[in-house]
Amino acid sequence: MTKKRVAVIGAGPSGLAALRAFSTARKQGHDVPEIVCFEKQPSAGGIWNYTWRTGLDEYGEPVHGSMYRFLWSNGPKEGLEFSDYSFEEHFGRPIPSYPPRAVLLDYILGRMKRDDLQGDMRYNTPVRDVQWDADADNFTVTVEDLANSHVYSERFDYVICASGHFSTPNVPTFPGFDLFPGRILHAHDFRDANEFTGKDILLVGSSYSAEDIASQCYKYGAKSIIFSYRSRPLGFDWPEGFSEHPLLEKVDGNIAYFSNGESRKIDAIILCTGYKHHFPFLPDALRLKTNNRLYPLDLYKGVCWIDNPKLLYLGMQDQYYTFNMFDAQAWFARDVVMGRLELPAAADMTADTHVWRRREEALEDAYQEIDFQTDYVRDLMKYTDYPAFDLDKVAEIFKEWKHDKAEGIMTFRDRSYPSVLTGTMAPPHHTVWMKALDDSLEAFLAPAANPKHKVDAD
Amino acid sequence: MTKKRVAVIGAGPSGLAALRAFSTARKQGHDVPEIVCFEKQPSAGGIWNYTWRTGLDEYGEPVHGSMYRFLWSNGPKEGLEFSDYSFEEHFGRPIPSYPPRAVLLDYILGRMKRDDLQGDMRYNTPVRDVQWDADADNFTVTVEDLANSHVYSERFDYVICASGHFSTPNVPTFPGFDLFPGRILHAHDFRDANEFTGKDILLVGSSYSAEDIASQCYKYGAKSIIFSYRSRPLGFDWPEGFSEHPLLEKVDGNIAYFSNGESRKIDAIILCTGYKHHFPFLPDALRLKTNNRLYPLDLYKGVCWIDNPKLLYLGMQDQYYTFNMFDAQAWFARDVVMGRLELPAAADMTADTHVWRRREEALEDAYQEIDFQTDYVRDLMKYTDYPAFDLDKVAEIFKEWKHDKAEGIMTFRDRSYPSVLTGTMAPPHHTVWMKALDDSLEAFLAPAANPKHKVDAD
Ligand SMILES: Cc1cc2nc3c(=O)[nH]c(=O)nc-3n(C[C@H](O)[C@H](O)[C@H](O)COP(=O)(O)OP(=O)(O)OC[C@H]3O[C@@H](n4cnc5c(N)ncnc54)[C@H](O)[C@@H]3O)c2cc1C
Ligand SMILES: Cc1cc2nc3c(=O)[nH]c(=O)nc-3n(C[C@H](O)[C@H](O)[C@H](O)COP(=O)(O)OP(=O)(O)OC[C@H]3O[C@@H](n4cnc5c(N)ncnc54)[C@H](O)[C@@H]3O)c2cc1C
Ligand SMILES: NC(=O)c1ccc[n+]([C@@H]2O[C@H](COP(=O)([O-])OP(=O)(O)OC[C@H]3O[C@@H](n4cnc5c(N)ncnc54)[C@H](OP(=O)(O)O)[C@@H]3O)[C@@H](O)[C@H]2O)c1
Ligand SMILES: NC(=O)c1ccc[n+]([C@@H]2O[C@H](COP(=O)([O-])OP(=O)(O)OC[C@H]3O[C@@H](n4cnc5c(N)ncnc54)[C@H](OP(=O)(O)O)[C@@H]3O)[C@@H](O)[C@H]2O)c1
Repeated sequence: MTKKRVAVIGAGPSGLAALRAFSTARKQGHDVPEIVCFEKQPSAGGIWNYTWRTGLDEYGEPVHGSMYRFLWSNGPKEGLEFSDYSFEEHFGRPIPSYPPRAVLLDYILGRMKRDDLQGDMRYNTPVRDVQWDADADNFTVTVEDLANSHVYSERFDYVICASGHFSTPNVPTFPGFDLFPGRILHAHDFRDANEFTGKDILLVGSSYSAEDIASQCYKYGAKSIIFSYRSRPLGFDWPEGFSEHPLLEKVDGNIAYFSNGESRKIDAIILCTGYKHHFPFLPDALRLKTNNRLYPLDLYKGVCWIDNPKLLYLGMQDQYYTFNMFDAQAWFARDVVMGRLELPAAADMTADTHVWRRREEALEDAYQEIDFQTDYVRDLMKYTDYPAFDLDKVAEIFKEWKHDKAEGIMTFRDRSYPSVLTGTMAPPHHTVWMKALDDSLEAFLAPAANPKHKVDAD
Repeated sequence: MTKKRVAVIGAGPSGLAALRAFSTARKQGHDVPEIVCFEKQPSAGGIWNYTWRTGLDEYGEPVHGSMYRFLWSNGPKEGLEFSDYSFEEHFGRPIPSYPPRAVLLDYILGRMKRDDLQGDMRYNTPVRDVQWDADADNFTVTVEDLANSHVYSERFDYVICASGHFSTPNVPTFPGFDLFPGRILHAHDFRDANEFTGKDILLVGSSYSAEDIASQCYKYGAKSIIFSYRSRPLGFDWPEGFSEHPLLEKVDGNIAYFSNGESRKIDAIILCTGYKHHFPFLPDALRLKTNNRLYPLDLYKGVCWIDNPKLLYLGMQDQYYTFNMFDAQAWFARDVVMGRLELPAAADMTADTHVWRRREEALEDAYQEIDFQTDYVRDLMKYTDYPAFDLDKVAEIFKEWKHDKAEGIMTFRDRSYPSVLTGTMAPPHHTVWMKALDDSLEAFLAPAANPKHKVDAD
């Protein structure tokens, strides 16, 4: 019998989770399918790779990266720890709870490198098209090898789509944008806060990107931060120089007008208006269509494309849980592919999603949302041997985090939480976040702001 | 007999020229094929449409536009006038030689609107894929209707590719870009010079984009303009505050280092490093591969894809001539499609291109380049009934323009040239370019800077 073939689209945390899941089974002695991972970037790590590029990359492809310089984890690392690879194992010692981007990338790649990656990695290779062939009972996946500008197709029995959904910006327009005398950008193209030092900045949107880009611009010397919200203000106790206004109505020259009649002079506009699920490589019949939410429909257990469960999606939910949830999904997907899990009839799968969706629609606040996603991950883990971890403790950590943010939006990153794997309480960082201007891995892991002193003192 | 079907990709000046060519034949009583024009933007005009957007558009598609606010024609309009539709006819009176973008867009769209556009226009519809079916002797063209996110395919006997080649940026990187504390952008994403007022700007590249973006930033108050060239400096007599340096070696923080050891402090970097011919929707066998030059190979008469002449390309050359050359090409393409022109055997077509290419390779300066492209257009026009115009006079105008630029890079746009169609000398603009800060059509067409005074004075 020839081996089944599985195409994994994307080598971000979700795609790597899939590779890890299969590799783990192989190490346990199981016969696993042949796996090919197509990744459009030159290396693994997904959106955690930083690039100074915006718009189109060196090959004319849309830049995947939405991360910027000076980005620090916005949640405690104890909420996302892989249950089979702790931070302590990776770094050889406990580290603080809110690491900068490069440190998390190092952690993600660390597990991958340690692993005998049961996959054929094709970098610089975007997937262009996926077609289902009902007669042959398999998919034709068409890709472009960018370095050689060569387009080719291969057949696969399963496709695991892990291409992320925080890369294609949702970019509304407002009257007056055509004549605005300054830069207008989406958060996706934000790179270096130093560009905005001394400026009055308007941020449209009222969620994580707005909150974090604003905090960062403030940290690097912006003159004032002017938020505009559509549904509700962020409502934190912002420092001097911040203000929250209802929806932008128009700009006239460099004056922004809001729906309540207020107006402010501004130098730049950053649209923090979220992202689109965007799969230009999938035909209608295979394409997930959803907004950014905790329970998109059409996916059984948030993973299997009900219309054709040989297509599996990872990481398509809005996220409190990230790396550990992707793992739980990947283990589930693996077991479907390997025939260890029997799927119910389509109608039953659909009915199951509606139960979850109804519950999701009734959620009233962030605390309930956290419980909902905790239950979702718990449900997934029930079906596979992804190593158990204390989900209730993680939920508690997320709730504490929400509370810490409300207490101090500029200081919550100075807090510490215990690992639910090792039990170790995270040490404080050597420098409070507001003063930690260097976001490199080296600076973060240095024993103290001035290591010499620290050694002397010990 | 069923009508032949022709797909035109793009409704910029080149695609519109194709529509015009067929419509003209139809008005003369000929039986013309059925034509469908697929255009990814919401309206016609190609790159002459201004958008404040950069990177990806509202549908997640790469933004086509590379034009910016305050862009004025960089060559005299007398060099590009359609020979069947003069500026005087469109505007009802003579206008100055260097119009701003909106005025040229109005002129392009004017001819289209006046015309009974012999075509089925599908806006918001990027072409995703083109496949040749040798058995059926036709193409399958797959497109996406963005507004309805619906992908569909249709069959065509001919494909005319007029998708432009100044939209996919060529973006090199240099050491230190990852840590540069300011904005790095490609000319493709440049929009509003006001963003750079008071700043020290580095422009990498030494051609039209560098020259024009620099002049504009200067006009709108940039502090200094620092050019970096790879092959040769622009060499104009720049005003105070400009300097030309050899190739950038690296940036370290906000200091740029050049290959001759010089260094300069900079606030922003604009890569004016040109564009790529980029056809992600074409398979290898149909895809033109060339750099930006006067005579790309593989195209007979610069138009017919020699390997399969049912595919025709318009506007793929580097350009002195623009609108009138696209017209000459479109008339040629039309006559091939309509069977009025018999193509030579493939080997003869290839031989013909090599004769041109050898001549192109021997060109020594801009004056010879102008003569070369003049001869190319003259050759094309020999085959069709595109209305004759005095090509030698146009060549003279281009040479005068080169000379005027050398005399005053900040003042050449104040010059006037005569129309080769009507003979009328263009009137001077009411305001010299350097002081004309408003680039709107209304301001340009207004009788004088202060119309009241002007009327009184008359
Ligand atoms: C600005 C920002 C900050 C964030 N900060 C945090 C944080 O602090 N903590 C946290 O837990 N989460 C954070 N996230 C969420 C983040 O999305 C997840 O942590 C995680 O990266 C999602 O992993 P993924 O593999 O699903 O997607 P991605 O990381 O986006 O990876 C998808 C991969 O698929 C590839 N790909 C896409 N299309 C194709 C194609 N057609 N062909 C081949 N390959 C393709 C991409 O190149 C990419 O490598 C942040 C997100 C953003 C946007
Ligand atoms: C910054 C800049 C300034 C310029 N200034 C001048 C000037 O002053 N004078 C001058 O004569 N020339 C100028 N040019 C040259 C300009 O390119 C030409 O004038 C002219 O616009 C070329 O016409 P085109 O139709 O070939 O291409 P474009 O104008 O680029 O039009 C191509 C069209 O194809 C569409 N398209 C692309 N891909 C697809 C797809 N997959 N499916 C469907 N539609 C698609 C695009 O949306 C676009 O509408 C300038 C160019 C640039 C970049
Ligand atoms: N590590 C970090 O520090 C960090 C930083 C940034 C982002 N992230 C991550 O990135 C992901 C995406 O976050 P996000 O904030 O970009 O997206 P998001 O959470 O989906 O929020 C989108 C925001 O845009 C608003 N919006 C959408 N369309 C709008 C319109 N037309 N006009 C006005 N407002 C509009 C929404 O308002 P409504 O509420 O009215 O819909 C909402 O406030 C999250 O997972 C987040 O954790 C992390
Ligand atoms: N209306 C207007 O005012 C206006 C304004 C801007 C542009 N345009 C039009 O736009 C079109 C494109 O012009 P363009 O200037 O963008 O492109 P271009 O004419 O192709 O020139 C590209 C430039 O980039 C340089 N370059 C390329 N790769 C480089 C690298 N790796 N490092 C350093 N330099 C590099 C080239 O140098 P080498 O010479 O060494 O190769 C060249 O100087 C033209 O048709 C022009 O007329 C018009």
